[in-house]
Amino acid sequence: MEDRAIKEISLLIENIHILTIDHEYGEFESGFIAVDGKDIIDIGSMEDLGCRYRAEKILNGHGKLALPGLINTHTHSAMSLFRGYADDMPLWDWLTKRIWPLEDRLESEDIYYLSMLSMAEMIQSGTTTFSDMYMFMDETAKAAQKVGMRAMLARGLQGYDKLSDIRLKESRELYEAWHGGADGRIKVMIGPHAIYTCCEDFLNQCMDLARELNLPIHMHISETKKEVLDCLEKHGRTPIKYLDDIGLFEIRTLAAHCVHLNEEDIQILGQRDVRVAHCPSSNLKLASGFMPAAKLIRNGIDISLGTDGASSNNNLSIIKEMNLAAIMGKAVAEDASAVSARDVINMATINGARALFMGDEIGSLEPGKRADIILIDLDKPHFKPKNDIDSLLVYSGQGQDVDTVIVDGKILMEARQLSTIDLDRLYIEIDRIKKRVMGVS
Amino acid sequence: MEDRAIKEISLLIENIHILTIDHEYGEFESGFIAVDGKDIIDIGSMEDLGCRYRAEKILNGHGKLALPGLINTHTHSAMSLFRGYADDMPLWDWLTKRIWPLEDRLESEDIYYLSMLSMAEMIQSGTTTFSDMYMFMDETAKAAQKVGMRAMLARGLQGYDKLSDIRLKESRELYEAWHGGADGRIKVMIGPHAIYTCCEDFLNQCMDLARELNLPIHMHISETKKEVLDCLEKHGRTPIKYLDDIGLFEIRTLAAHCVHLNEEDIQILGQRDVRVAHCPSSNLKLASGFMPAAKLIRNGIDISLGTDGASSNNNLSIIKEMNLAAIMGKAVAEDASAVSARDVINMATINGARALFMGDEIGSLEPGKRADIILIDLDKPHFKPKNDIDSLLVYSGQGQDVDTVIVDGKILMEARQLSTIDLDRLYIEIDRIKKRVMGVS
Repeated sequence: MEDRAIKEISLLIENIHILTIDHEYGEFESGFIAVDGKDIIDIGSMEDLGCRYRAEKILNGHGKLALPGLINTHTHSAMSLFRGYADDMPLWDWLTKRIWPLEDRLESEDIYYLSMLSMAEMIQSGTTTFSDMYMFMDETAKAAQKVGMRAMLARGLQGYDKLSDIRLKESRELYEAWHGGADGRIKVMIGPHAIYTCCEDFLNQCMDLARELNLPIHMHISETKKEVLDCLEKHGRTPIKYLDDIGLFEIRTLAAHCVHLNEEDIQILGQRDVRVAHCPSSNLKLASGFMPAAKLIRNGIDISLGTDGASSNNNLSIIKEMNLAAIMGKAVAEDASAVSARDVINMATINGARALFMGDEIGSLEPGKRADIILIDLDKPHFKPKNDIDSLLVYSGQGQDVDTVIVDGKILMEARQLSTIDLDRLYIEIDRIKKRVMGVS
Repeated sequence: MEDRAIKEISLLIENIHILTIDHEYGEFESGFIAVDGKDIIDIGSMEDLGCRYRAEKILNGHGKLALPGLINTHTHSAMSLFRGYADDMPLWDWLTKRIWPLEDRLESEDIYYLSMLSMAEMIQSGTTTFSDMYMFMDETAKAAQKVGMRAMLARGLQGYDKLSDIRLKESRELYEAWHGGADGRIKVMIGPHAIYTCCEDFLNQCMDLARELNLPIHMHISETKKEVLDCLEKHGRTPIKYLDDIGLFEIRTLAAHCVHLNEEDIQILGQRDVRVAHCPSSNLKLASGFMPAAKLIRNGIDISLGTDGASSNNNLSIIKEMNLAAIMGKAVAEDASAVSARDVINMATINGARALFMGDEIGSLEPGKRADIILIDLDKPHFKPKNDIDSLLVYSGQGQDVDTVIVDGKILMEARQLSTIDLDRLYIEIDRIKKRVMGVS
């Protein structure tokens, strides 16, 4: 307060309840967030705001809650086309009879629009950063650049088959074209799909590439009982032990699902600091099983949250995954005090940032981090009375309670209106793609 | 079409996708619903509408989905005060240290406003009928009358203690004052709380009263493992076998929860045509366990859906319970094709009506039934593309997608604006109650 000069800034959010998810800054019942350009430059209580800032844009946060933008660490955004297309089917029939035949008909440009549809849904439910694994990732990158979201992208890799080398080449090209792109909002991972689609030689090639480019790995691990049983039969070890033995976890790794784990698996995940993307909706809907979240938390493992694709969830709301991770985690642990509201808020924010190796940039609201901020509208019957803010958010909140979304200091949604996506035009493109790929509109 | 006279009616909904949940009428991709007064008088395809009706009010349903109003068969609506008040705690501590001491401070008039808060939330998430068990039910009845919802009310009964006789007397008074009240929208059940709060003599008194007044019974049954183990120890039988042996199921019964069931229990539920209120969110959040929904469906048992109170869920959205019942049901059955989208839509509609012994009045859209209708707004990213309407509703839908709610032909919400509740005034009352009961605002 000694410096009485008024600073010009781009955005000031005031009169707002803030969960910073930062140990030092904690919670403000009535606070402000000062943003300049892409960065948070100041945060504090309204009492301490004074007249330090003159902002180009002011958001009055009365009756709202500010928290770090939510982070979806595992999705396949272009699979929005298949939302509700073939539900209530066993996994193998679903993949082989319904999904794969249609995926072969997808063209590069389709991915741009299909990813954008998922981005519209993610923004509308408070997600600011997503981690994607699919094909034609160049198009997803272009869409994220246009829309303004933060993205961690991995070309899905299977091998060997006749396209394996091309896919590896595409991973390298994705890195060259997009790593650090869109003003630093886009980064790249290496994405070997799973042990049942990648042989050991091919995994080694993926690991070589990850080491060469200094990129983390994003992989489906121990999603189904069948995956674990097949691995035990083939390699005499669980998938996690097997991957540890071949050295995969010497590279920074984001492991999606991790549903079926024994004690040794959990020890390995902890020792190797593997980041986990927990996808509770998908795991239940595909009948994959119940992830033992409380046990992982007790072992100090960083759980983050993923929605998986819209074809297996079928929505992309991290607020819904927070709720489910908490209540399912309690039931699995047979303990109502396990997996608390704050545990899952951490999963969706700071753990998500760490899972994508972006813990220094995002995941909490503190000066020096990027201004990825969401505002939740608490002025609704299901948020009354305001007994406990963590509980309200996790157990009573819904995706559509998100009012405003800011990424890199730029407002992508205000009062639920998207500013970077023209939905009517997008829907026309989606209908066109659906007609061509599925033969019906 | 022979009768060319134009009929004057009160409400016409047109150009709308309709799920009637009726075998004969089925589904209309573009249809109309004609309502006169409290009743649906006609339903069909737009092609067959012609110029038969002149309606006082017309709702254009383009881009929307019509379905029967959702039915919440187990809640404690006045517990909205305790939403988020004491989460992440073991059940017993929660009840004895946090909830019960505060419940003693509740006054009759509080229940009016607290129930109304839950009604606001229920209407906003598409519920038109709810089944409640709590105290001061006269006030909940008054609130339902004012708000326009349909309600099945039971005074919660425990015994013996010094208030048991008074509670039984209140049940009788509730029946006399309200059964068939509010233009037929309110009915009454007898509500013995649970076997662990009611001794056998007291249960017999409850059964006598139910028989005398010809009312069904609403009771918590087999909610927790502890309840079952204690009953095995005390009575040498499961709760369901015990209740069957004492003749309770000779009276029409709605059994809430039914989480922990053995094969014989399931046979008894089927043979006695006991109606089940499945409350998946509450069962997970309180770590009560996983209800085997697929097994009950296979045994022909009518499962309906309940939210339980806002203190143990913590929201009152039957759309959320539909989603959870389906995905949890699949995971418990280890079969992604178990508990389909249509199964849970039935749970939330026609089974809900049957669970409340109102199957002739509500639960499906067909001429002769009451006009309890909800319209869902499908014009949102998470509903695109429109591959399968059942899947969209169950796996992608959220409470806030409900646009319009009609009960007994009267519009209680249109374009998400409530017409019978003044929220700002209500919030003031809730704050006042919170301050008095909890000592903080």
